[in-house]
This record gives sequence, C-alpha cells and structure tokens, in this order.
Amino acid sequence: MNAQLEQPAAAGKIMLVGIGPGSVDHMTQRARDAIAEADVVIGYVTYIKLVADLIEGKEIIRKSMTEELDRAVSALEAARAGKKVALISSGDAGVYGMAGPTYEVLFQSGWTPEDPVQVEIIPGASALNSCAALVGAPLTHDFCAISLSDLLTPWPTIARRLDAVAMADFVVALYNPKSGRRTRQIVEAQRLFLRHRRPDTPVAIVKSAYRRRENIVFTTLDSMGDADIGMLSTVLIGNSNTFVRDGLMVTPRGYANKYDMQEGGATREGERAGRSLSTGLLGWLDTLRAEYQAGASIDALAMQYHLPSDYIQATLDEPWEAETGSEAEGSEA
Amino acid sequence: MNAQLEQPAAAGKIMLVGIGPGSVDHMTQRARDAIAEADVVIGYVTYIKLVADLIEGKEIIRKSMTEELDRAVSALEAARAGKKVALISSGDAGVYGMAGPTYEVLFQSGWTPEDPVQVEIIPGASALNSCAALVGAPLTHDFCAISLSDLLTPWPTIARRLDAVAMADFVVALYNPKSGRRTRQIVEAQRLFLRHRRPDTPVAIVKSAYRRRENIVFTTLDSMGDADIGMLSTVLIGNSNTFVRDGLMVTPRGYANKYDMQEGGATREGERAGRSLSTGLLGWLDTLRAEYQAGASIDALAMQYHLPSDYIQATLDEPWEAETGSEAEGSEA
Repeated sequence: MNAQLEQPAAAGKIMLVGIGPGSVDHMTQRARDAIAEADVVIGYVTYIKLVADLIEGKEIIRKSMTEELDRAVSALEAARAGKKVALISSGDAGVYGMAGPTYEVLFQSGWTPEDPVQVEIIPGASALNSCAALVGAPLTHDFCAISLSDLLTPWPTIARRLDAVAMADFVVALYNPKSGRRTRQIVEAQRLFLRHRRPDTPVAIVKSAYRRRENIVFTTLDSMGDADIGMLSTVLIGNSNTFVRDGLMVTPRGYANKYDMQEGGATREGERAGRSLSTGLLGWLDTLRAEYQAGASIDALAMQYHLPSDYIQATLDEPWEAETGSEAEGSEA
Repeated sequence: MNAQLEQPAAAGKIMLVGIGPGSVDHMTQRARDAIAEADVVIGYVTYIKLVADLIEGKEIIRKSMTEELDRAVSALEAARAGKKVALISSGDAGVYGMAGPTYEVLFQSGWTPEDPVQVEIIPGASALNSCAALVGAPLTHDFCAISLSDLLTPWPTIARRLDAVAMADFVVALYNPKSGRRTRQIVEAQRLFLRHRRPDTPVAIVKSAYRRRENIVFTTLDSMGDADIGMLSTVLIGNSNTFVRDGLMVTPRGYANKYDMQEGGATREGERAGRSLSTGLLGWLDTLRAEYQAGASIDALAMQYHLPSDYIQATLDEPWEAETGSEAEGSEA
C-alpha cells in the first residue's frame, strides 16, 4: 500500500512553453495545448497574468524574475512527483528563456533523456520577431540578439559583441536594455555603435508588444538616450541600409543590387535572376585573383575588402573551380 | 453602373503570415485566422503545401522560390481589387521572409499607410527558434542569424559578418547554407569560424524541422563539411561554452559565473543574487580605473580586454558615478 502511494501513477513531464508576445492570439496551438494538459503551471508573475484565461483550476507556482533556477527546480520536483508541468516563458523558451536554465538544472540532478521525466520545448515568436512585425520589416537582413544584462555576463564580453556587430553592419535587437539599477549599459552600447554607424541610423524602441500598454517610438542612434527605455523594451537598431518611411522601419533585402527597382524590376547588367551576384563568392574570387595577379598585395586586398589577410591568402591558395552544380535545382532570389 | 463595377466593395488587405516551422500545431491562432479570412493565398509552392488543409476553396497563387518580388506584386494587385490576401512565409514573415520585399514593392508603387489597402504582419517562430527547440537550448545566450545566400548580398559583406561574430563568440544560425549551385559558401564560413573557434565546437544541422522529413545531425566545426546540408537545412554553430550532452546541445546562460552549481547553487564570493556580476559594467569600470591609475597604458588595457583603445579611453573619460538606482525595482537573475 505504502509503496503504491509513493509510486506515481505515471511519469511526469516538463513542457517549456514559449507563449509569444503575450496575447493569446499570437500563441501557437501547441503552446495552448501544453498549458491545457499541464497539472502545474510555473512562471514569472507577469507571464502567469498573460495566460490567466487558460490556467483556471490548475496548480500555479509564481516566481520572481530572479528565481529562474528555482523555477527549474520546482518544475523537476513536480515532474518527479508524476505531474505534467508547463514552464512558461514569454516569447520563445529558447531565447534568453527557461530552456537553458532547465537543462542546466536537469543535468546537474543526473537527469538524462532516458529518464522517465520527459522534456518538450515548444517554440514561439521571440521578442525580436514580434517587435519587428509591429515596426515594419527591420529584420529582412542578417541580425543579432544581444542582452545588455550583466547579471550573468561580464561587461567586456558584451562590449566586444556590440563592437563586432556594429562594425559588421548587422541589424541588432537589444534585450534587457535597461532596468532601475542598470542604466549605463545602454549608454555604452550607443557609444560603441556610434564608432561605426551614422548618427541618424534608425532605432525603434518597442515596449510591451501586442500587450495592453504597447508603445512604439522611432528615434535615431544619436538621440536614443532621450527615449523611454525599460525592462519591457526591446531596442532595434538598423543597419547602414535601414530606413524609416511613413512610420515603417524597413531593411532592404538587397534587390536593388540586382534589379533596377525604378525600371520595373529589370535585371541589372552583368546580373542574372536566380543566380549569385557578380560580387557573390565566385565572382568575388575571380576579381580577387585578377587583382592579385595584377600585382595587388595580400595586405592591400585585405584592407580593400575589410577582411583578414590570412583569409584572403587562404582563399587564393584554394584550388580554383569554375561555377558548377545542377541547373535543375531550385535556388533563391 | 460602370463606375460601381470598377469600384471594389471594400478595400483589400495584405496579411504577411509567418506560419512557423510548417506543422499546423506550431502555427499561431492569428496566422490560422488570417488564412481563414483570406480570399487569395500566395506563396512558394512548398509553403502552400504545408497549409493545404486550411486553404480549400480559396484562390491560390503558387510561385517559385526566385519570384519574391512577383509574389508581392500579385498581392498588391489582388488587394487593389478589393481582396484579402494572405502572403505565406515559412517561419517568421519578417526574417528573410516576405515582409521586406512587400514593403519595397508597396513603397515603389506609391503606397502609404493611409492607403485603403492595409498591411498586417503576423509574427511566427523563425527557423532558428524551431531548430533550437529540437536540439536542446543552444540560443540561451547572444546569437546571430546570417544567410549564406550571395544572390542579393556581396560575399565580402557576408564574410565580414561571419568573421566578426566568430571572433565575438556568438551562437550563430546559418540560413540558406547551401544549394545545388552554391556549395563553397559553407566551406568559406567554416574556414572563417576555424580562425576563432575550437575545431570541436558543437554544430547542429537541422533539416525540415517539425516536418515529415525532419532530420537532426550533431557534428563539430571541423567535421561539418562531411554533413548532408541543403536548402532546407539550418546550421547552428555553438559559442565557446556550448556543449552537447546526451544528444542535447546547450549553451549555458552563465549561472556558473555567479553560483556554485556543484554546491547547491550557493552564491560565489563577491557576487550577489539579482545584481550585476562583479565583472559587470560598473565593477569592470572600477577595475579598469584602478589598473589605469596603477600605470597600465590605454593600449595595454585595450589589448587585455580585446576592446578598441578609443573605447577604453572614452569610458575612462566619463564622469564616474557610484552604483545607484531604485532597490525596489525588479531585476533579472
């Protein structure tokens, strides 16, 4: 009898649920279903409020923002007791969310994927996706996410990342840009960006995307210090081509490199639809080789293309192949 | 009578729908509703197949992969004729999706937000979110998305970005890593990463996440050249802390910097829960100032912290403020 009482009827499960921006409309069906099948729902108090309509009658464990490892420990305890647990993250559970801390706690406890306690991660739209959808199309080209929180990351690591991506012309989403106590991080980020980007680079500050107090402000890199930025804000910094027009922030994909957008989309001379640009990898290697053979030094080429000398050397050393590959296979624009 | 025939009953609408990875379960309610209310559904043939169950009886316009601008033009024409149009993107419509090309075409046509044709972008989980959920928790720290397609982007731009983020230790998701015709880009990406990262850096290659032919392969940076990579693959490259254990790829968030994970999570000496690390911005500024006053040169400090000299100089020039700010306000772990 006692043995039966101690033995749970079935093994528990931990479901790491990304609920998206916070409106039920923008949650996936799988996220809704996971919350519906959960016995226990665990999350930061603010996120629990966002799913209040879906959790009636369930055991709720509310945690403060600093208790991420505690949330994971509570989830494991409940799952060990045979319960199905929904661990709620806003946005995507894998992006600065509960997926990481949970696996860290699970591994620490000796858990393996063969354990009766199963784990499922349910992806959702992260803050950068939701904020981008509200401001236009800022993430149409290569982008980065950087958290300005130095609670777990040394500042030199964060600063090096800011400097690198500002230089390499990424669109950047800053998570955790500022809190009551952390106010100078965003100033330092701005300083690092202004070393590489124009002062009028477009910046969008999105607060509480798709929630009741949603607020969007457009500003520029040199003026962003005056904007209201807080813990619920995401800061989107454009690349050198990003523009704001009629209240929409757009990063061009690069069609203008290939097509004459003024002339009804005619393909530019030397370019072919469905093929790499003339300045794409193989075209660039041709040019590089010709410039080198014409007497340009490795260092001069490295300087010209803003790439490391040893990389230039290595590509020139590589045996040369002409453009090959199946003509039949589909390819991108 | 004629005038009435030419005048549509109501203005049309363009809905840019991110359908997530491709299984209906991982689509948001708003995405389903948008497709349901659409008169016309436009998309790349493969994406149209993924939503086949939802589009019966609707006008369908299938386009090939290279016809992104065509898709946007068709959407605008249908919306001008008073129709509601769902323009389908896999993943998120804003991430290498249709949001960018559509705004480019709209602006080109003279469209403004005051136009009767309205535009709505519906965010979804992008490939990096979906792929991460399937392999573990690789995106728990700062990350980048880079497309290796050089069809619209010059190779030196892509190469500079790869080099910068490899150096600055980002987790990286490579989109469009390879096609029948583009085979050397991934080799060049590997070469650039190996300049900065260990050969055994974990790499996950995820094909057709959450679709019928889903396939996940774990490999390492130096062996990724042997892996099967194609147009439907996303390549996730870990940072210097990412590990694979029991078939799960995890990037630690940094709790070990603050807590002794072996000792039941005790806070390390000199650190405080809910506060910046001792090597966070303000702590680091203290150290920097002390080292400078003890005689270290700006250039030596720049070298030590791998940051630009003028940035070190600028932070030292800034008037010094002790740690202040509201104790009451919440803060992260």
